[in-house]
Amino acid sequence: MSKTQLTAAREGRISREMKIVARKEGFEPEEIRKLLAAGKLVIPANKSHKSLDPVGIGAKLTTKINANIGNSQTSSCPTEELAKLEVCLRYGADAVMDLSTGANICEIRRNLIAKSPAPIGTVPIYECASEYENCDEIPAERIFEVIESQAEQGVDFMTIHAGLLRKHVPSAMRRLLKIVSRGGAIIASWMRANRKENPFYEGFDRILEICLRHDVTLSLGDGLRPGCIADASDKAQFAELGVLGELVRRCKKAGVQVMVEGPGHVPINEIEMNMRKERELCEGAPFYILGPLVCDCAPGYDHITGAIGGAMGAFYGAAMLCYVTPKEHLGLPDAEDVRNGIVAFKIAAHAADVALKKKNASLRDREISLARAQFDWEKQFSLALDPDRAREFRSAALGKMSAKSSASSSQSNYCTMCGPKFCSMKISAGIANKKAGN
Amino acid sequence: MSKTQLTAAREGRISREMKIVARKEGFEPEEIRKLLAAGKLVIPANKSHKSLDPVGIGAKLTTKINANIGNSQTSSCPTEELAKLEVCLRYGADAVMDLSTGANICEIRRNLIAKSPAPIGTVPIYECASEYENCDEIPAERIFEVIESQAEQGVDFMTIHAGLLRKHVPSAMRRLLKIVSRGGAIIASWMRANRKENPFYEGFDRILEICLRHDVTLSLGDGLRPGCIADASDKAQFAELGVLGELVRRCKKAGVQVMVEGPGHVPINEIEMNMRKERELCEGAPFYILGPLVCDCAPGYDHITGAIGGAMGAFYGAAMLCYVTPKEHLGLPDAEDVRNGIVAFKIAAHAADVALKKKNASLRDREISLARAQFDWEKQFSLALDPDRAREFRSAALGKMSAKSSASSSQSNYCTMCGPKFCSMKISAGIANKKAGN
Repeated sequence: MSKTQLTAAREGRISREMKIVARKEGFEPEEIRKLLAAGKLVIPANKSHKSLDPVGIGAKLTTKINANIGNSQTSSCPTEELAKLEVCLRYGADAVMDLSTGANICEIRRNLIAKSPAPIGTVPIYECASEYENCDEIPAERIFEVIESQAEQGVDFMTIHAGLLRKHVPSAMRRLLKIVSRGGAIIASWMRANRKENPFYEGFDRILEICLRHDVTLSLGDGLRPGCIADASDKAQFAELGVLGELVRRCKKAGVQVMVEGPGHVPINEIEMNMRKERELCEGAPFYILGPLVCDCAPGYDHITGAIGGAMGAFYGAAMLCYVTPKEHLGLPDAEDVRNGIVAFKIAAHAADVALKKKNASLRDREISLARAQFDWEKQFSLALDPDRAREFRSAALGKMSAKSSASSSQSNYCTMCGPKFCSMKISAGIANKKAGN
Repeated sequence: MSKTQLTAAREGRISREMKIVARKEGFEPEEIRKLLAAGKLVIPANKSHKSLDPVGIGAKLTTKINANIGNSQTSSCPTEELAKLEVCLRYGADAVMDLSTGANICEIRRNLIAKSPAPIGTVPIYECASEYENCDEIPAERIFEVIESQAEQGVDFMTIHAGLLRKHVPSAMRRLLKIVSRGGAIIASWMRANRKENPFYEGFDRILEICLRHDVTLSLGDGLRPGCIADASDKAQFAELGVLGELVRRCKKAGVQVMVEGPGHVPINEIEMNMRKERELCEGAPFYILGPLVCDCAPGYDHITGAIGGAMGAFYGAAMLCYVTPKEHLGLPDAEDVRNGIVAFKIAAHAADVALKKKNASLRDREISLARAQFDWEKQFSLALDPDRAREFRSAALGKMSAKSSASSSQSNYCTMCGPKFCSMKISAGIANKKAGN
């Protein structure tokens, strides 16, 4: 039996997961197999994640979005994280990362894996760090134990900050915001304190061996991603990306599925270049980007700042977007923030897919527009990325004009934005019916 | 005395308004005068708008945003519109359009002009249409009377749909969404019913004469802007844009300031081309775009869909972005929607300015990032595009961790997103203080 989706693809075998992804995306299974074998596409699918509905991430497929949930030391409990998972699934997150750093990490993750059809990702260093008062005290050995136990639990993909080396730290320390990746900061601190090289890098073969056994997809973390516009696209960022390229080759050689994580904060004019550089340095491994945020001065609205960058990133080649919620930089997101973050990034991903003319991507836009012209409100709601919100806004608007009955809500041939007389759709329909004067 | 900012600039005179714009934007007054004389920049400044604080829109200047307010037949009253104006000014709208189509149009506009330091724009056909049961019955003469009375009242810029001609209507009628511009639909319907050419086009010289007298800036409306992705960049849209180019030349010849309005719904891959086409056809007159929305299926979140398109539009050359609120397609925006729309588009405009390296644009990002590294929460809030929201989110997050005192709010050196132990900023600061092991 093949060890991973990648080794199966290389052996010419089409797995059940490849067939499911092919069907969902409208491709021939053989095409999915080829892209997988070439390392252009991954299907994170831990053998122990029994409830998984496989998702493909990478070349030619629709752009995916990931939602981060998880508690912190100061907020949330296991039931709250399950509620967030439900929101993730309801609003269409394609993957979910549990970034818990507080209490009950193991229990939260077990529950999420048991309930989630979406692939579940983690950052194992967080669990390690949660066990010690000072992250510099983490024994290197503990890192591999945690990775192994999480792999056994059924985690589909793991962020490993293996590309941040000792030699990179000085240039990162000269930045305006130094290191803003939590994992990156922990590793850098550990390396300085222990005067040792990055244990993820040093022990990368051990990690590969664990991932191979469980088919865990590695997500090579960008510990040196820029945390502000001033630090974007700098020496530290690209030095690490070069090492990630080397690690991509080691993963592929070992038969381990791999994707690469990307920035961060990037001005609009540097997004295309960032996407291209990853393709060049990492052999086209799926690029999984965080935002990127296109400016630094919108705390409270960083789902929007990130959706702008994410749409452009996906348009220029990113395979998956990690969402950002409105609480970014301010606090731990709650369920409503998760919803707002997901929808913002669904917009970004979909807009890029439409622009790239991906299979059937613009069909939904055509159908909702047609429903709009026909004043078929229920159909519009059902085709909306967030039907609940669209319905809520329309009924609130109707409420204001004292026409609350559900009949008028779904049938009236105008909206309160323009009112009946100024409705361009209604006037347009009237023109078509007029005897032409031309 | 010169008649308009444009005629003054051509005569080599630097007006008070040019000096103010130059100071605000960090340019020499002479450079502003040159750009104005060349038609690359406008300063909408009706001679009767006494409370105006002049704003420059166009080449080299920061990207501006416009907020639409105004009532409809079914919603809002004069006091509500004044409350919306306050929100516009508080959150940084550079221009405000009163799109009222309901009761008390004249009174609402008078109040807005009296109170607003931001330039006020209108769409005169709305007032005309509000006076008749059926818009086809509007006498052509009434259009010029309304334009004149609004000019006398102090309106700084007016949207005139003069580029939509009879010959364009058939191709627009073959579209999925036909005509979605309210003004465009009214004119098209009027032309068909009355078997006459567009009265704005026919009487354009009369309009120019009024604008010249009061220094009203013309905003040439895109009555045939696409209303969905399927209709984007089509024959109808560009046929009208060609006529707008002709009208730009007539405005300039007459000494009337002019800008051009643009789409609408445009997929990401066509935004750059749309911006270029306007520059070519309209001699680089400032392009004032609505969004554009980069997909059709996000009702309830179209401020985000529009901010993505707006950021890219501004990056590729648009001078002003007309905001879209979360209520677009669903209902008339209330004050909170206005706020959300403005901030989304301030982000888009600012991100484009940062990417275009406009004067001092990224300074704010550098400062807020520095404040972030220093855990100076109050400074972060003060530099945020919406300080109120940032403050509210942080204190809600702190409230959850029972640390409500304002002292802890402004001083604690971590946020609830990561908690104290997992704060990358804090760990980074620690690394810098460690004895280097390298």
